[in-house]
Amino acid sequence: MEELKRFKEYVREMGKLGSAAALLNWDQQTYIPKRGHEGRAEVLGKLARLAFEMLVSPQMAEFIDKLDRPEVKAGLSEQDRAMVRVLAKEHRRRKAIPPELYEQFVITTSKAHSVWQEAREKADFALFKPYLEKIVDFVRQFAELYGYKENPYDALLEDYEPGLTARDLKAIIEPLQRELVPFLKRLLEEGERPRRAFLRGTFPIKKQEELTLRALRAMGYDFEAGRQDTTAHPFTITIGPGDVRVTTRFDPKDLLSALFGSIHEGGHALYDQGIAPELRWTGLDDGASMGLHESQSRTWENLVGRSRPFWEFFYPSLQELFPRFRRVPLEDFYRAVNYVEPSFIRVEADEVTYNLHIMLRFELEEGLLNRRIEVEELPPLWNDAMKRYLGLVPPDDAKGVLQDVHWSAGYFGYFPSYMLGNLYAAQLFNAAKREIPDLEKKIAKGELLPLREWQREKIHRLGKISEPKELLERVTAEGPNPQHFLRYNKEKFSEVYRLH
Amino acid sequence: MEELKRFKEYVREMGKLGSAAALLNWDQQTYIPKRGHEGRAEVLGKLARLAFEMLVSPQMAEFIDKLDRPEVKAGLSEQDRAMVRVLAKEHRRRKAIPPELYEQFVITTSKAHSVWQEAREKADFALFKPYLEKIVDFVRQFAELYGYKENPYDALLEDYEPGLTARDLKAIIEPLQRELVPFLKRLLEEGERPRRAFLRGTFPIKKQEELTLRALRAMGYDFEAGRQDTTAHPFTITIGPGDVRVTTRFDPKDLLSALFGSIHEGGHALYDQGIAPELRWTGLDDGASMGLHESQSRTWENLVGRSRPFWEFFYPSLQELFPRFRRVPLEDFYRAVNYVEPSFIRVEADEVTYNLHIMLRFELEEGLLNRRIEVEELPPLWNDAMKRYLGLVPPDDAKGVLQDVHWSAGYFGYFPSYMLGNLYAAQLFNAAKREIPDLEKKIAKGELLPLREWQREKIHRLGKISEPKELLERVTAEGPNPQHFLRYNKEKFSEVYRLH
Repeated sequence: MEELKRFKEYVREMGKLGSAAALLNWDQQTYIPKRGHEGRAEVLGKLARLAFEMLVSPQMAEFIDKLDRPEVKAGLSEQDRAMVRVLAKEHRRRKAIPPELYEQFVITTSKAHSVWQEAREKADFALFKPYLEKIVDFVRQFAELYGYKENPYDALLEDYEPGLTARDLKAIIEPLQRELVPFLKRLLEEGERPRRAFLRGTFPIKKQEELTLRALRAMGYDFEAGRQDTTAHPFTITIGPGDVRVTTRFDPKDLLSALFGSIHEGGHALYDQGIAPELRWTGLDDGASMGLHESQSRTWENLVGRSRPFWEFFYPSLQELFPRFRRVPLEDFYRAVNYVEPSFIRVEADEVTYNLHIMLRFELEEGLLNRRIEVEELPPLWNDAMKRYLGLVPPDDAKGVLQDVHWSAGYFGYFPSYMLGNLYAAQLFNAAKREIPDLEKKIAKGELLPLREWQREKIHRLGKISEPKELLERVTAEGPNPQHFLRYNKEKFSEVYRLH
Repeated sequence: MEELKRFKEYVREMGKLGSAAALLNWDQQTYIPKRGHEGRAEVLGKLARLAFEMLVSPQMAEFIDKLDRPEVKAGLSEQDRAMVRVLAKEHRRRKAIPPELYEQFVITTSKAHSVWQEAREKADFALFKPYLEKIVDFVRQFAELYGYKENPYDALLEDYEPGLTARDLKAIIEPLQRELVPFLKRLLEEGERPRRAFLRGTFPIKKQEELTLRALRAMGYDFEAGRQDTTAHPFTITIGPGDVRVTTRFDPKDLLSALFGSIHEGGHALYDQGIAPELRWTGLDDGASMGLHESQSRTWENLVGRSRPFWEFFYPSLQELFPRFRRVPLEDFYRAVNYVEPSFIRVEADEVTYNLHIMLRFELEEGLLNRRIEVEELPPLWNDAMKRYLGLVPPDDAKGVLQDVHWSAGYFGYFPSYMLGNLYAAQLFNAAKREIPDLEKKIAKGELLPLREWQREKIHRLGKISEPKELLERVTAEGPNPQHFLRYNKEKFSEVYRLH
């Protein structure tokens, strides 16, 4: 079919522009010299404009018009049909926003970023408030322009978790909240806290780096198709076929943050490295959703990286690099990496408390989108929810409502992906345990590749061919189900905290 | 003038594409993982195609048509006039080559590259010959399509040294050859060779790196607007405003190659860092010619970096990093870095023999373009010229006609820039000595910035505003004159080699 062939060629060219932009982004966060930033922003702007023009062009409109029809799609392969689905949606959503409105949004968020930074430094919400009000106004407009059936929140969530709705999220959150809040309370009141004084000290960066590389190699991250560099804010980025890079950061006072950071990014990278080569530059060459992507990083970071079997395998390696741990029993170390503590800051949260941070944000975002909440009410509402979920009230807004960058960038609907990532991870890992004989024994022997192969086969290679719900059903025979996470979480931490 | 404004905007957009391509290139030679190369080539191809399309577009044709007229140009600023000159020429030259012919050329040269590599490894010219024949056929056609007044060689030289002709080159080469060949003979027969046994040994790469950074800092290379990385083949690249990077390579058995390599690339980088900010993305934001660019790297590498005053300043720094040299007198070290030795390989040649390698190549290229020579005759003609100029005959073609990559890439007319760089360097350095009081005393005290400032004011900031002949006349009050180089060379090496 000539039209399909031309469409695929066209999308391929868009992919190449994206690849160039990815390298420019990576460099901007790793090696660019100080005075290069200003010009870099302009070059990135140029590439974004070219990609945008290709996405909304009359040519693309014609492709979509001809291909996105039931009678045409019925004759396509699953992959080609998915391509049409993904590109048609992107095309329509980008065209739904008038260019002038989008431009104003970009200008506002780019100013808002530095204002947010300052407001956070000064713990002064009033500084940020007028910008956040404008941003909320933009995203409310976007939701109307994109359209939705039931809840304006759904229109935004679609960017991050296609096919999921606010109603789905509420159904997931309800049991989580009902069980996690009292479980946390019980852990803290009745549990036996792990010792962790032995984690204090200074840990040379060279050795920490070697430790992260050993972990990445064990996971099966392919260093011939990637590399690890250091940055202020760790990330994973696909630069092109055969080029998926991770970054991490080292703190000489903290042995664990770089290690778990690298394992987390490595989990993302395994996803991208595992996408089938034939999906490259088709628009399907990414994770099925943000939540699915996060599920892979969380699987490796938590379900593997903070498990007893993993440390049975990996602890000798750590002890070899840091001999002081020869005096610390494995069990003590394992318990220490699973310390639970309610805290103000989401990114520092443990496996038990993390999702509570997300529920709070979802509650506020969903209220804002539905105009039940206005921006000025956010600080007291935030603090109130923190009290309810975590039993803590932030001492100031820097440790509260101002802590995350997302809202300043206009990312509304993004936070739930972090929670979904945790839930999907538990649900998928249960399937892996059913299907891979002796998975935990294998992990304890350092045989991590069977898990990677299972993930590759069931998830990674498929890219965006399926939407997240469908993919979960394909792999686990059910939709998103929070019970897997709850069971995992309660079993693990009851044991770590020695609840009778 | 509305048209001019739009033209400048248009060229600025082309510049941004060039900036993206530059980073992709840099990364390809520094940090890209092995499996990323295939995709990278496609992305670079895409950006090249976009830039090409912009250069030959009907829109560009219209700009040129309207702006490249004497009555219009008379009303433009010098900078805008230069922009029109440079872009009109590029536009016409790219349009002169039919796209199919150019595509065939690109395919041929990209295959030829690996064939050349193999031929060089096996020292087997016959392998490379059919490809080189095709390439010579292409460049002969290009010369006709570009057009020329006197010599088809001029049509190709224009890419590298605009405004210069084969006739100019012959007038420059004649006295050089007449004097250098007997001078070299005399040096070797009557001179006293410097000792250099003390250069043998192992030099840790970390310390070598520190040495190169000290040299770059002393030259005034701005590390806030650049960085140094390592590569197989060192180069300098402008990635964007405020971002001019150098690369070097380290050999633990060779103390000097990385140091002089870094100083050489640093000389190129000072040129690019010094270009006036208002020339960014105007098409004028590069050196006036390849020869001028090389003159700046050669100035720093040879006229400064291999001078006695430089080592008076820098030797203590080297001795601090490599204490073994505390036993080697400065004079011995200075003489050792100026060792002269006829050799087979151009890139290893010293200041006396280097230009002889270039003359040989020019002779052959000019003969090929004028059809006085055919490709099959190259090996014996090469060896014959080596005998005449350097008194050596290569043991095989790997050390002879196959040594350089240039012809496999279709770069005919490029080699003379290396020679012109040496000549311009001497001519410009004489002007600097006249105009900067006590320049050599300043260098001996480590005050290298006055030289950089002089270069910036007279040469760097102007970018491509003037063509090389005109620029030389502006700065030195005369056109290219080989006598400066000859005098410098004979004085310096007569002294180093203690000719009576």
